[in-house]
Amino acid sequence: MTRGSIPILRVGSNLIVSVQRDLHDAIAEAFQEDLLVTIEKDGATGLLIDISALDMVDSYVARVLADTGRMAKLMGTETVIVGMRPEVAATLVRMGYTMAGVRTALNVDEGLIVLARRGRK
Amino acid sequence: MTRGSIPILRVGSNLIVSVQRDLHDAIAEAFQEDLLVTIEKDGATGLLIDISALDMVDSYVARVLADTGRMAKLMGTETVIVGMRPEVAATLVRMGYTMAGVRTALNVDEGLIVLARRGRK
Repeated sequence: MTRGSIPILRVGSNLIVSVQRDLHDAIAEAFQEDLLVTIEKDGATGLLIDISALDMVDSYVARVLADTGRMAKLMGTETVIVGMRPEVAATLVRMGYTMAGVRTALNVDEGLIVLARRGRK
Repeated sequence: MTRGSIPILRVGSNLIVSVQRDLHDAIAEAFQEDLLVTIEKDGATGLLIDISALDMVDSYVARVLADTGRMAKLMGTETVIVGMRPEVAATLVRMGYTMAGVRTALNVDEGLIVLARRGRK
């Protein structure tokens, strides 16, 4: 199992992750664990997950993403998921999956603005 | 029963509690009662509960913590739970427990910032 295969970048007080392959099985768990440990270690206040490279997000991956946001939230870190492609958004809504409780933004820039706003509150 | 066994520190207008053992049974009740009485006595505006020493938080303990925050809120005191470890966050979310309505922060410093911001609003 390749651990830490999804690079986690630190930008200011935020972490930025660009997901470029399917988050399935062991990869999903390693992804969550890596992220949470990095949040604890680096003291990040915000987490931005870019999924613009994903052409398809099934309900399992959507749940992994939403769960990751909820876990980070319990640790005190806001999560924004950015770059969801139109066809992904359409499919998720048709499946009845709206990722309740997770913040979203159009792209990385907008996501960072959302996180900065939360920081000031 | 050892009452008052979890020390409650006063820092400015906030109370800081560091939970270092499992909040079960009588200890949980004594913990909540001590906290609420201290809030009333000292007139604290914020309560910070540090759980970084807990390697495991089951659903009972999670509920005790969330309930304590809600009780303090009813008395007019904001609660922030800080220092949740990655594995604890992961387990709680997988159990479907997201501690709704409770504020969280990464560590004591961030928690005090959250409380200070609330104070200004």
